[in-house]
Amino acid sequence: MASRSIRLAVIPGDGIGPEVVAEGLKVLEAVAPSGDLAFEQTSYDLGAARWHRTGETLPDSVLEELRGQDVILLGAVGDPSVPSGTLERGLLLRTRFELDHYVNLRPVKLFPGVKTPLADVTPDDIDMVVVREGTEGPYTGVGGVLRKGTPHEVATQESVNTAFGVERVVRYAFEVAASRPRKKLTLVHKDNVLTFAGDLYQRTLKRVGAEYPQVGTDYCHVDAATMFFVGQPQRFDVVVTDNLFGDIITDIGAAIAGGIGLAASGNVNPDRTAPSMFEPVHGSAPDIAGQGKADPTATILSVAMLLDHIGADGAARRVEQAVSDDLAERGALGTRSTAQIGDAIAKRVSG
Amino acid sequence: MASRSIRLAVIPGDGIGPEVVAEGLKVLEAVAPSGDLAFEQTSYDLGAARWHRTGETLPDSVLEELRGQDVILLGAVGDPSVPSGTLERGLLLRTRFELDHYVNLRPVKLFPGVKTPLADVTPDDIDMVVVREGTEGPYTGVGGVLRKGTPHEVATQESVNTAFGVERVVRYAFEVAASRPRKKLTLVHKDNVLTFAGDLYQRTLKRVGAEYPQVGTDYCHVDAATMFFVGQPQRFDVVVTDNLFGDIITDIGAAIAGGIGLAASGNVNPDRTAPSMFEPVHGSAPDIAGQGKADPTATILSVAMLLDHIGADGAARRVEQAVSDDLAERGALGTRSTAQIGDAIAKRVSG
Ligand SMILES: CC(C)[C@H](C(=O)O)[C@@H](O)C(=O)O
Ligand SMILES: CC(C)[C@H](C(=O)O)[C@@H](O)C(=O)O
Repeated sequence: MASRSIRLAVIPGDGIGPEVVAEGLKVLEAVAPSGDLAFEQTSYDLGAARWHRTGETLPDSVLEELRGQDVILLGAVGDPSVPSGTLERGLLLRTRFELDHYVNLRPVKLFPGVKTPLADVTPDDIDMVVVREGTEGPYTGVGGVLRKGTPHEVATQESVNTAFGVERVVRYAFEVAASRPRKKLTLVHKDNVLTFAGDLYQRTLKRVGAEYPQVGTDYCHVDAATMFFVGQPQRFDVVVTDNLFGDIITDIGAAIAGGIGLAASGNVNPDRTAPSMFEPVHGSAPDIAGQGKADPTATILSVAMLLDHIGADGAARRVEQAVSDDLAERGALGTRSTAQIGDAIAKRVSG
Repeated sequence: MASRSIRLAVIPGDGIGPEVVAEGLKVLEAVAPSGDLAFEQTSYDLGAARWHRTGETLPDSVLEELRGQDVILLGAVGDPSVPSGTLERGLLLRTRFELDHYVNLRPVKLFPGVKTPLADVTPDDIDMVVVREGTEGPYTGVGGVLRKGTPHEVATQESVNTAFGVERVVRYAFEVAASRPRKKLTLVHKDNVLTFAGDLYQRTLKRVGAEYPQVGTDYCHVDAATMFFVGQPQRFDVVVTDNLFGDIITDIGAAIAGGIGLAASGNVNPDRTAPSMFEPVHGSAPDIAGQGKADPTATILSVAMLLDHIGADGAARRVEQAVSDDLAERGALGTRSTAQIGDAIAKRVSG
């Protein structure tokens, strides 16, 4: 019997979500014995189908159940049959906000053998971690609309940033930077235009940075950062940024590191006052759902992050290594289905 | 004597601004006779030096003088010796807002012979125009800070979007799309999170689109758009987006089209109630200022846009062609100084 039992909430969600989550779980089960772990799974049918059936996105009772779990694995949410934003805000963002996932952790790493759209780069050139704020900034939903549908309509969106919220994410980013060989932290913002929020980030970087003299810091406007991601990705080691800028730059990050099929993420509550949630960066991709075409690698790498989060470092490294080996051989393996990729990686971790 | 005289305001600005503007003017003077044009230039010493001397960014009296001009050519503003945002907001954005430059027009075009950081793309793959809103959205400066410097600080930034402002820029984008062979217009926003502003853009696209049945429309979240810029730039013909998203995606656009040294832009007041302003997308690059290293091509292409704006299409095409020819030969020409590039292009347009 495994010595440690983990309560795992699974939210397969919409589109390709269930397919990729199935492979993630396959790998998790395969690696569990090596870490002496057992996962007690509860699956939650949240997403488009539930919304159509009941009008619910995330009922309070389900949210309370989620709070009682140790960790959450999410596939993807969103479907064209549901008005844009309904599930994203009502389910995904609500979970991030309610469970205080103030760190949205997104590694951007080019694995050997993976094709990048950039010419002349090698895996050494692309190896960074983006620490995206997850609970404030332009994602608060604060704002509104006046005189809707008239020629005098005004629609506003407010970015709300607090010393409390900025300090904790910046501190987390310093910790990540301090643990890495290069020890470099770049703040990405737009402080020449968004002066109030940018100034708060800048002052916080400076103040918290005084406690981390071993970490070098610099600053990059978000527009320039996107350019450097494409032209000079070597510039970056750890990046800290707000919710919206983080959303944008991690998609470029995914693009340069071989595509959204490989990009993993963690919605982390570092204080562990509620369970953290791990999910691939990609969406529900309804156009390819149910065809066994989706690449489950991003979900499997998210499982590795989940393992890290629960302290199962050995198992996490095993999964990462298996993915890395699988990616290195991929060219030779030809086109494989979602399940074939999952099987191959599961086999490697259990071997 | 030239049959048409144009009042041209020149704002060389900071860093490499004066160097690249000198080359832009050289080309403008060289091409002028072919269009039977004469430029009556007034130069304005705005920027870091003026701010240090007098504390002024853009005095009201200068703004009034600018209003009396036909068109403006700007180099770049910003210097590390001036607090971030001071010149950007006080000079550049103030000009855009006061002169109602509601269209920030930014072509993204890969010229033959230009090296792009993307593997496997040809000039046919990258040929789009971004129509960035210029006078509202997150750039209004609305927002503030409460309890600054305390653990209870709150900093806000507000994106303000109006039916008036959105409709006019969307309409302009439809006009641009209708004039191009592909006739495709993509709205880039983040309507699943910024629901109020996104919805206003979406409804406006639909309503105005009814008047342009020949133009196909689609929608792309800003995060996905950045990924497609890198992975599938062919997807885009004309893009319409808000001020902040436009700022970000046009820098990726510059990166994929060969770098910021080539990216031109126009801050356009299509109603001609005030002069429009043309400027390279790049900044003042203080690190290379005064060394004759800056590439003036972005400024020269901005001059071509300026010529288009004043109706001198023939001269505009001449400048564009000269730049295109120069770029095609660049590999063979070796490293050239700012002035050498300007000279070469000036020679071609006057030839
Ligand atoms: C679906 C959407 C709300 C979400 C976000 O914007 O955070 C997604 O793009 C992501 O990056 O996880
Ligand atoms: C300098 C800055 C205010 C400006 C902007 O954000 O618009 C620049 O980045 C640009 O794109 O022209």
